[in-house]
Amino acid sequence: MTADKERLEEQIKFIVQADEAKNIFRHTYLADGSRNENDAEHSWHLALMAMLLFEYSNEDINLLRVMKMVVIHDLVEIFAGDTFAYDEKGYSDKEEREKAAADKLFGMLPKDNENEIRKLWEEFDAMESSDSRFASGLDRLQPLLNNYATKGKSWKKDNVKADNVRKRISVLKDIAPELWKYGNEIIEKSVEKGYLKD
Amino acid sequence: MTADKERLEEQIKFIVQADEAKNIFRHTYLADGSRNENDAEHSWHLALMAMLLFEYSNEDINLLRVMKMVVIHDLVEIFAGDTFAYDEKGYSDKEEREKAAADKLFGMLPKDNENEIRKLWEEFDAMESSDSRFASGLDRLQPLLNNYATKGKSWKKDNVKADNVRKRISVLKDIAPELWKYGNEIIEKSVEKGYLKD
Repeated sequence: MTADKERLEEQIKFIVQADEAKNIFRHTYLADGSRNENDAEHSWHLALMAMLLFEYSNEDINLLRVMKMVVIHDLVEIFAGDTFAYDEKGYSDKEEREKAAADKLFGMLPKDNENEIRKLWEEFDAMESSDSRFASGLDRLQPLLNNYATKGKSWKKDNVKADNVRKRISVLKDIAPELWKYGNEIIEKSVEKGYLKD
Repeated sequence: MTADKERLEEQIKFIVQADEAKNIFRHTYLADGSRNENDAEHSWHLALMAMLLFEYSNEDINLLRVMKMVVIHDLVEIFAGDTFAYDEKGYSDKEEREKAAADKLFGMLPKDNENEIRKLWEEFDAMESSDSRFASGLDRLQPLLNNYATKGKSWKKDNVKADNVRKRISVLKDIAPELWKYGNEIIEKSVEKGYLKD
């Protein structure tokens, strides 16, 4: 096999492996409440949100990088599983589990692709750069929208408190204050309506 | 409500409406054959493919535009339903149904967002620009990969012939000849293995 052919074979194998993100289910439900959503659907939803909500960024962000980040941000869960946002126990070994998963999954790719995706994923997780704070803010706003649409279905099931959600979306405060304010308004309405415990 | 607030409300309503793409199921199965895939998952998979396979484009293409196109390309199916690629009857009124769906769905957005998404969708469908031929090529290559992974599960079910698939992926011939060649190799292997009828 030529080097070029081998490169393409590796990329295709990774792409087929990534299909499993469609089988990693999250705590959040679809907006119609019919079932839990999976990582692939969730990541697509964030990419669409990035396209439309990009304009609310207070800082100079790169939409292409934000879209790449949200597309790949949950891929490691194929090998590491989904860790629920409010699960303290699950979070204790999340980093270790996900690093091993990243080695295994991203290591399937040609080195330059591996480096790019791994760096994007690490940047997303660190929430330090403008791009990653915006991307991460969307990742935390989207379940809020779906929870509100389902009258708090997963909040109730998981006994989530308003303060937990407020804290989660605080990453948006500086990077996209209008989205942060909007998220907080939904939290207030959710508490009023009994979707979310104060 | 201020104009700004109204704008954000419209965008959020659209984003929540778009959640329904997670309930529009396609003929293609997941790579593990466990169930049909939906539009949201499929679109996410194409965005990931665009990131990795971008380098095979023979022409100067814009990755951000390609990613935007694949993210929004099936949204109209929320109102128009999925039309199977090899369904001649369904194709006869596809254009009309999808145009009405685009009016309804994209019309939920502020005018500038509506114009951008509508133009991207029309460009994707026309398959004339480099960006749209590449995006459309991915849209036709991905089900081929998933069909091969499932030993032709949806090809067999829908009685698809190798020539139909060859014709579908021919959009890649000029824009990404290595991907086109790769697709044809999978078709040949699929015929040999009995996954696909010649």
